[in-house]
Amino acid sequence: MPVTTQVRVRYAETDQMGIVYYANYLVWFELGRVELLRSLGLAYSQLETDHQCILPVVDAHCRYRSPARYDDEVLIETWPALLRGSVIKFAYRILRKARGGEQHELLAEGETVHVVCDDRLDRKSLPARYEAALRTLMAGEPGESGRKTHSRTTASAKPS
Amino acid sequence: MPVTTQVRVRYAETDQMGIVYYANYLVWFELGRVELLRSLGLAYSQLETDHQCILPVVDAHCRYRSPARYDDEVLIETWPALLRGSVIKFAYRILRKARGGEQHELLAEGETVHVVCDDRLDRKSLPARYEAALRTLMAGEPGESGRKTHSRTTASAKPS
Amino acid sequence: MPVTTQVRVRYAETDQMGIVYYANYLVWFELGRVELLRSLGLAYSQLETDHQCILPVVDAHCRYRSPARYDDEVLIETWPALLRGSVIKFAYRILRKARGGEQHELLAEGETVHVVCDDRLDRKSLPARYEAALRTLMAGEPGESGRKTHSRTTASAKPS
Amino acid sequence: MPVTTQVRVRYAETDQMGIVYYANYLVWFELGRVELLRSLGLAYSQLETDHQCILPVVDAHCRYRSPARYDDEVLIETWPALLRGSVIKFAYRILRKARGGEQHELLAEGETVHVVCDDRLDRKSLPARYEAALRTLMAGEPGESGRKTHSRTTASAKPS
Repeated sequence: MPVTTQVRVRYAETDQMGIVYYANYLVWFELGRVELLRSLGLAYSQLETDHQCILPVVDAHCRYRSPARYDDEVLIETWPALLRGSVIKFAYRILRKARGGEQHELLAEGETVHVVCDDRLDRKSLPARYEAALRTLMAGEPGESGRKTHSRTTASAKPS
Repeated sequence: MPVTTQVRVRYAETDQMGIVYYANYLVWFELGRVELLRSLGLAYSQLETDHQCILPVVDAHCRYRSPARYDDEVLIETWPALLRGSVIKFAYRILRKARGGEQHELLAEGETVHVVCDDRLDRKSLPARYEAALRTLMAGEPGESGRKTHSRTTASAKPS
Repeated sequence: MPVTTQVRVRYAETDQMGIVYYANYLVWFELGRVELLRSLGLAYSQLETDHQCILPVVDAHCRYRSPARYDDEVLIETWPALLRGSVIKFAYRILRKARGGEQHELLAEGETVHVVCDDRLDRKSLPARYEAALRTLMAGEPGESGRKTHSRTTASAKPS
Repeated sequence: MPVTTQVRVRYAETDQMGIVYYANYLVWFELGRVELLRSLGLAYSQLETDHQCILPVVDAHCRYRSPARYDDEVLIETWPALLRGSVIKFAYRILRKARGGEQHELLAEGETVHVVCDDRLDRKSLPARYEAALRTLMAGEPGESGRKTHSRTTASAKPS
C-alpha cells in the first residue's frame, strides 16, 4: 500500500539536457520515505533525535522510464517492501501527474535498502513503534496512514 | 581496464549524518564516465555539441559499503562494462584513497546504463570513433587511455 | 506585497553542521520567484518556451539570521523590488513557520537581480503581460495574485 | 594575496539554461576557502574535529559576470578580506581558465562573511594558529602558502 507525496520539479534539479539530473531521483526517494513515515504518525527526525537511529542506505537502484522536466508535478509513491531485522527496503514509483483526465505517466521506479544504525554506524533494531507501523502498512491495513496531507494511490497509479 | 579519477569530498556533499549524502555517489559516477571518455581523447561535451548525442541514464545502481566523509580523497574507477547497439553500461568503484602504506578502502560499487539519443530523446548510434575507443578499452588494450591526468588502477584497487 | 510559498527542509539540503547548507537558500529564492510568477497566473516555464526569455541572475545576496534545520517547515516570501528595462530585482524573506501560536522566525533575507535575455544571453524586454503583472504586484494591488496555493503574509511575517 | 584552486564544471552543476546553476557558485566559494586554509597547512576538517569550531555563513554575495558552462576549467581565487574578533570575511574571484595564450575570463566575484562558533552555534575565537596564518596571508607575506597543489595568481588573474 503506497503512500503518495507530491513535489514540483525545481529549476536547480534540471541539467543542460533540459531534463531532471538523474541523481535527483534519489532525493525524491528520500522525500517519499520520510513522508511514508510521517503518514504513519512517525517522524524521521525523531528517529534520529529521540531514538539515536539513523538509516544509512546500503543499496539504491533506479530504473528511468521517461524524463521528468522543469515545473512538472511529480508524484512519489513509496511503500515498505521488506523488513527483516535491522534491514528495511523501500520501493518507489515516480509519476508525472496527469494534467487532465489522462493517467499519470510512469517516470521511474526503484528501491533503496537501509540498515538501522546508531550514530556510530553500528547496527541496531528499529524502535518497536516504527516496526509495528511499517508492518501494518505492509499488511495493507489502513492503520494511521490515511492522514490529511497524503493520499492513497488511485487505480491509475498503482504499483505493478 | 578501469580509468581512475580523483575528487575530494565537498562540504556541500555531506548531510547531517556526517557522511556523504547517498545521491552524490551518482554525481561521482558521472565524473568517472566523463573522465573515462577524456582519457580516450574524447570529450562528452563534444558528443553533445558536435554529434548531437546525449547519453540519458536508463538504470543506475549503487551498493554502499562504507561511508565517505568530508575532505576524504576519493578515487573513482570507471570502465565500460557493455556496449551493444545504442546501449552503454559503465561500471564504477568508489574508493577512499589510502593515506599511508595502506590499501585503498572500497566505499561503493555500481553501474549505470545509458541509451545514446539525439536531442529529441530518440535512439541513435554512438559515433564510430567513440565506439572504437570504448571497445579498445574493453579489450584491455592500452590505446590512447594512459594520458597524464589519469592512472590505471593498481593491484590494491582493481575491480573484482 | 509578498507572495508566500512553503517548503519542508530536505535531508539532502543539510550538511554535517546539522543545518541547511548555505547555497540551498538560493534554491529556495528560486522557488519563491517561480511561485510569485505563478501567483500572477504566469509560468516561468512558459516565459522560456513561449517567449524565448530566460532570466539569468547577475547578483545574489543572502543574509543568514538563524539556521534552518532538517524537517523545518520554511516559508519563502518573495516580492518584486525593482523593475527597470530588462532588469528585475526580487527580494526574499525566509521564515521558519511557527508551530503553535508563536511568530514565524526570520531565518534569512536576500535579493537577486536578473536581466531578461534571449537564449543567446542577449538582453531583451520582459513580455508586456509579465511586466504589467509585476507592476500591479509592486503597487500593492491584489490583481490575480491571491490564488489558492498561496497566501499573503500575515502581520507576524511582513517584510521590513 | 589570493590562493587559487581549480575545478572542472560538472554536468550536475548545469541547469536547463545550459549554464551553471547560480547557487553552485557558493559551493565553489566553499572549495576556495577550504583550499585557502589547506594552503596555509590548516585543515577545515580539523577546525571542526580538533577545535570544535564551525564557521557558519552570515552573509554571502555573488556578482555574476559571465556564465560558466559544462566542462569549463574554472579557477577559484580566494583571499581573507577581513578578520575581526570572531568574524572572518573571505573574498573570491571565479575565472574561466584560458585555453591558449588568452587571459582568464572573469565569471563571478563575491564575498562570504563567517562567524566562528562552537557546535552549539555560540561565538568563540578562531584558534590562534589559524588567526596567525590568515593574518600572514592578509599581510601578503609568503608564509607557508605556496604549497604544491596551489599556485599564486598570475598577472592576468589578479584581484582588482
